[in-house]
Formats: sequence, C-alpha cells, structure tokens
Amino acid sequence: MNTRVAGLRPGGRSARVQAAVHLAVHDLTEQHGRAALTVPLIAARAGVTPSTIYRRWGDLADLLADVAVEHMRPETDPADTGGFASDLFTWAEQYFEEMTSEVGLGMLRDVLSATPGVTPRTCQCSAFNAAQIAVMVDRGIARGEAVPEVDAVMDGVVAPIVYRALFAAVPPTRDDVRRFVDRVMASATTR
Amino acid sequence: MNTRVAGLRPGGRSARVQAAVHLAVHDLTEQHGRAALTVPLIAARAGVTPSTIYRRWGDLADLLADVAVEHMRPETDPADTGGFASDLFTWAEQYFEEMTSEVGLGMLRDVLSATPGVTPRTCQCSAFNAAQIAVMVDRGIARGEAVPEVDAVMDGVVAPIVYRALFAAVPPTRDDVRRFVDRVMASATTR
Repeated sequence: MNTRVAGLRPGGRSARVQAAVHLAVHDLTEQHGRAALTVPLIAARAGVTPSTIYRRWGDLADLLADVAVEHMRPETDPADTGGFASDLFTWAEQYFEEMTSEVGLGMLRDVLSATPGVTPRTCQCSAFNAAQIAVMVDRGIARGEAVPEVDAVMDGVVAPIVYRALFAAVPPTRDDVRRFVDRVMASATTR
Repeated sequence: MNTRVAGLRPGGRSARVQAAVHLAVHDLTEQHGRAALTVPLIAARAGVTPSTIYRRWGDLADLLADVAVEHMRPETDPADTGGFASDLFTWAEQYFEEMTSEVGLGMLRDVLSATPGVTPRTCQCSAFNAAQIAVMVDRGIARGEAVPEVDAVMDGVVAPIVYRALFAAVPPTRDDVRRFVDRVMASATTR
C-alpha cells in the first residue's frame, strides 16, 4: 500500500504525492525537529495542498506513523556473517542502536500514538522484524546449524530491546544485547 | 509526588485538587470514552478551572499520563502462593490480563505519548514492575528456593508481554505467559 521514499514506483500521481510528502516530513524533521512539524508546513514543502494530506492521512499523527513505518521497513536482508549466532548478534546490535537513538525512539512513539489499539501499522513493525529473523533462521537451517524459533527471538531479543528503550531508566547496552542473544541461543535446536 | 485517587492524603488543597481531577478523568473515561476527554470537560467535572489543570499538568496528554501511572501503581504486594514459580506465574498472568485489556493498552499509550524520550514517568511503570518482582524474589530467597535475577524476569516475562501487547498481530495468550515464566525459571539459582 505504501510507497517507499527511496524506492518510488515510477508513474502514478498518487505514488509521487506520497513520496514528496514523506520526503518533506523527513527533511523538515532534520532541519527543524519533530515538534515543529505541522500539516501546512509539510504541504508547502511537498508542493501539495494541506487538504491533500488530510484526505490521505487523516491527521499529522497518522502521517508521522506512516513515515515511521516506511522508515522501519528493512532495505536489505540481514548481513550473512557465516553463522547464525553472529548473524543474529550483528542484526540485534544494529536494531538496538537504531531503536535507542532519538530518531528510532521517535519512530516507535509515532507508530504507537497514531491510532488506539494494535493496528496494521504496529503489527507491520513487528512483522518486519519477524521476517528479518526468519531469513537468518532459514539460512542457519540451510547451513545445518542449531537455530531457535523465530518467536523465541522476538520474545527474547526484540522485546527486551524495545521494552528497555521505551521504559527503562537506563537504556539497554551492547552487553545486554549479547546476553539476550546468548540466552536465546540456549534454546536452539537442529532441524 | 502524586496522590492516589484511592488513597488520598487528607488535608492539603493540592492533594484534593489532584484527587478530584484524577477521579474526573476516571469517571468521564468510563462514561464517554477516552477520545471524548477535554480539559474543560474534566475541569467542569472536577469542580476546578481549566487553568488549574493547565498550570499543574501542562496539557491533556500529560494529565492522562499522570493518571495512567497512578493507575499502574500496585496497591498490594504480589500474592504469596507458597512458591516462587507459582507466585511469578500468578502475578504475570494478572499483569498480562491488565496490559492486554483496552484500558491497560490505553494506559501504556498514554504514558508513552505524553512526552518524547524516556521520562521519569515511563521509568516509573518499569520500576513498579521491578519492585513487585523483587518482592517475589526476596520471598523465594527467604524460602530457600532457586530464583532468577529481577532483570531476567523483566527481560524474559514483562518485556515480551508488553511488546506483544503493543505490536503483535495476535495478542499474547496465557500459554505464552506460562512459557515466558518457564523459560526464565530455567535460569533460577539458589542464593
């Protein structure tokens, strides 16, 4: 449904509007910070009318959530480092760095605050992670390695990174990530 | 700093105003739903002026976050069921039921959306949980039982419940909670 700013499908006016608006949000956030964003400001920068934005996205919160989800969409498969445990640690470390950065935290909040309840959008963030983990698990199985279940990695690695990023007084550290990965590797089995 | 609606300290006008406003939020949410809340509506119900609310809380999001944190504050120690593993499962099951309910999800979102970044308020939610878990762990140690670290319970039980409640397409189930508890019990040691 959404077009990525970086991977715009050529053609359709709708796709071009979407890309221009996403890009405007991105640029304005970088220049003025997220708190300064308004629909009229974004519209002016994207060269569309505010009503175009309201028609397509409803309100600013919804637009910001849409941009955040697109930003979270992985652009490539996780790096192949030659072994499952190091693939997972490398991926988890990168995910942790992103989610504990100001930008990453802002995205998590944008996605959560747009609409009440669990939405297709919040689920999409979770599905992106599950898909990345599944790629690593499949690669591990193909190598004949012992691997954990995708759900076990979601619960044991992704969940504590996000929970600590959102709620903990002290943000998670690289050592925490290492411990999460080690703990989930203890449940790995050959399939 | 905050006064609980249910446990109002007698005396101080400030405490009475806080209790009245919290109670108004609670009653109006129940009657009209959260989306209908406005500062003037809450002020009228609480018998204070809107400017009293703005002066003390800044804005509606901040007030709702304050109410949510107070609601999350545990009223009693976790039930003593005679053994650590069943104490933890009983507590986790109750926490899971609360956090996956519409009210619980609304509270999580209220706390997260009030102010950007990790705040004393988001940390307080996490500290409430850690304190409840510490009570169970200490009780287990006193009984001579093998117990996990408090942090391991936060990462292995609380985090996946909250992450799934906020992001997963399918909410966590009682069986998931059981599995989270079993997994963390595997790391228990006698101290």
